[in-house]
Amino acid sequence: MTTDPVALTADLIRCPSVTPDEGGALVLLQGLLEEAGFACTRVDRNGTSNLYARWGEKGHARSFGFNGHTDVVPVGDAAAWSCDPFGAEIRDGVMFGRGATDMKSGVAAFAAAAMDFVTDTPPDGAIVLAITGDEEGDATDGTVALLDWMAEQDERMSVCLVGEPTCPSEMGDMMKIGRRGSLSAWFTVTGTQGHAAYPHRALNPMPAMARLMDRLASHELDTGTDHFDASTLAVVTIDTGNPATNVIPAQSRGTVNIRFNDIHTGAALSDWLREEAAKVDAAFGTTTEVKIKISGESFLTPPGPLSDLVAAAVEAETGRTPELSTSGGTSDARFVKDHCPVVEFGLVGKTMHQVDENVPVDQIARLKEIYTRILRDYFAG
Amino acid sequence: MTTDPVALTADLIRCPSVTPDEGGALVLLQGLLEEAGFACTRVDRNGTSNLYARWGEKGHARSFGFNGHTDVVPVGDAAAWSCDPFGAEIRDGVMFGRGATDMKSGVAAFAAAAMDFVTDTPPDGAIVLAITGDEEGDATDGTVALLDWMAEQDERMSVCLVGEPTCPSEMGDMMKIGRRGSLSAWFTVTGTQGHAAYPHRALNPMPAMARLMDRLASHELDTGTDHFDASTLAVVTIDTGNPATNVIPAQSRGTVNIRFNDIHTGAALSDWLREEAAKVDAAFGTTTEVKIKISGESFLTPPGPLSDLVAAAVEAETGRTPELSTSGGTSDARFVKDHCPVVEFGLVGKTMHQVDENVPVDQIARLKEIYTRILRDYFAG
Repeated sequence: MTTDPVALTADLIRCPSVTPDEGGALVLLQGLLEEAGFACTRVDRNGTSNLYARWGEKGHARSFGFNGHTDVVPVGDAAAWSCDPFGAEIRDGVMFGRGATDMKSGVAAFAAAAMDFVTDTPPDGAIVLAITGDEEGDATDGTVALLDWMAEQDERMSVCLVGEPTCPSEMGDMMKIGRRGSLSAWFTVTGTQGHAAYPHRALNPMPAMARLMDRLASHELDTGTDHFDASTLAVVTIDTGNPATNVIPAQSRGTVNIRFNDIHTGAALSDWLREEAAKVDAAFGTTTEVKIKISGESFLTPPGPLSDLVAAAVEAETGRTPELSTSGGTSDARFVKDHCPVVEFGLVGKTMHQVDENVPVDQIARLKEIYTRILRDYFAG
Repeated sequence: MTTDPVALTADLIRCPSVTPDEGGALVLLQGLLEEAGFACTRVDRNGTSNLYARWGEKGHARSFGFNGHTDVVPVGDAAAWSCDPFGAEIRDGVMFGRGATDMKSGVAAFAAAAMDFVTDTPPDGAIVLAITGDEEGDATDGTVALLDWMAEQDERMSVCLVGEPTCPSEMGDMMKIGRRGSLSAWFTVTGTQGHAAYPHRALNPMPAMARLMDRLASHELDTGTDHFDASTLAVVTIDTGNPATNVIPAQSRGTVNIRFNDIHTGAALSDWLREEAAKVDAAFGTTTEVKIKISGESFLTPPGPLSDLVAAAVEAETGRTPELSTSGGTSDARFVKDHCPVVEFGLVGKTMHQVDENVPVDQIARLKEIYTRILRDYFAG
């Protein structure tokens, strides 16, 4: 069997599955997977559509999992596109469309690889696809809903590959074995308004705000760990909105964003931020309110059998040794890591979320070959 | 001759002389002063009306000057007043109206004192009134225009009394012998925008802004001088306007206001502010633009014959020894000080610029008595 991953990518792009719309993408996949012998279940929750598909025995000790998404970000300025964003037009060997790289090509490549593999060389084990329709949105009822349902049903993945684009420049140059965590904190420093000519009668929140932000920005969170870059803190804004030079304002607001590695937790960083605010309040007499949102904790699948397997397949197919990276933003791997070891590998993501998002069609074919080799090596191992 | 300063204050309040409108106030004064033998000249410039009046010989070595203004700030919310802001209504011995304290009562009290004095006991010397219609506005064509014209005409004041309200609580408790200077500085720190997850690819202006404002706010400008409180620096606002926690902004703006005493100059402080910005730029790689506006330099008429004269008259009439202060905002004394020694004394200014601005009528009468004694003592001296 030789399923064409390029044609499947095109068919998926033609499904207008902008989050949270299913757009026909999961229905299309389900039809094909069922035809190839996969048992499929729609795991929809709160208006989000998700598809669970398993070939082979439920709960098998060798269950290879794949996680991906068929939803896409909005088109943006449609007039700025040189083509129909849902047309999957191919020009000079390049396919254009929303989701071309992020990540309908990844889903198509793995589905094609898996369907052909179970048909041609049925393995002793199981292959699971956990495909969500809400990765680009809040992600509260997407991969999380699939994992919740799997736990209830005793469904399992022994390992999981996430098919997001991971390569910065060339096919095969990077895979991800973890991601940094992310949190944002909003500080509101309150003092007492007054006349700038009589500062002793007021309590200016601005010096406290400046000191707090200087302390936070100057603090070295760490110098990096074995598999992570140094954590970073960015002061992203300070706003006061006082137009009068002769008035001391009552309040000022500042926001920081932290991307943190595996020696931190969101909770410990939150404690630190609150302590810093309290220190500054003690020094200046101000009152600082702190609101914190932890978008995700950092996680790492340490280099081992799974990353070795994927890296070897990538190297065999591309001639490149992929860097084991933990850089970049967040992905649904942050949920999967609580279920089983997880790594990420996909194609070059240069145009993701952009106008005229596109993918060279030979990259899609190459990605199917890599995924096929991963499956073959996994079940041979 | 016993000119009634209360009636004259009421007549002036009934002239709606909101800056820059003359409103009939200077015309009224000119008529009365000319009748009393003063030579009057309207010194209007660029739409601002000003009145110069002299009794006695031009350029006399004993020329007593008075500086005041007949313009008033706007009424504000007219509906919030309990009376006509231009009605000069008297209730329970208190006169209500815009300018009741700031400073039609002061102008009326001095004009009444001066007219009676030259009529009853013509002195060997001159009395000058330099009355402007633009003290509450930009003040660029008010007292400055009068002083420019006086220089051209070889008109002079040997000493000058400014009749602004100076007493914080009780009639006679404070006079002013100088004022602090004031400047504002606007800083725009520029870096390079970027993604908060990749701060090394951006140049965040926020840490530089926080450091700069912390340095400025922490710096002790001085601990005060013989006649001045310590200079103050207030950070009045920092604004960035970046709503996205995952974006490092390109630019942030901050503003400081400095009130400075006689050991600083606006120019030296400007140099210091620019040096601080340059130091921070050198440390952070940012580019900071600095705009500075010096509203007024500090000045002092050191305690001496003029302040002794005024203080003695105040004490004789009120039983209070006025504090020789340099506190508070700015006044036109900042211009007069380049012409001759200048001090300020007037009534209690509690309601200036407020709704239902008002003055007890007996304070107006008392102020005329004080001004009369000052004139008598000056020409007797």
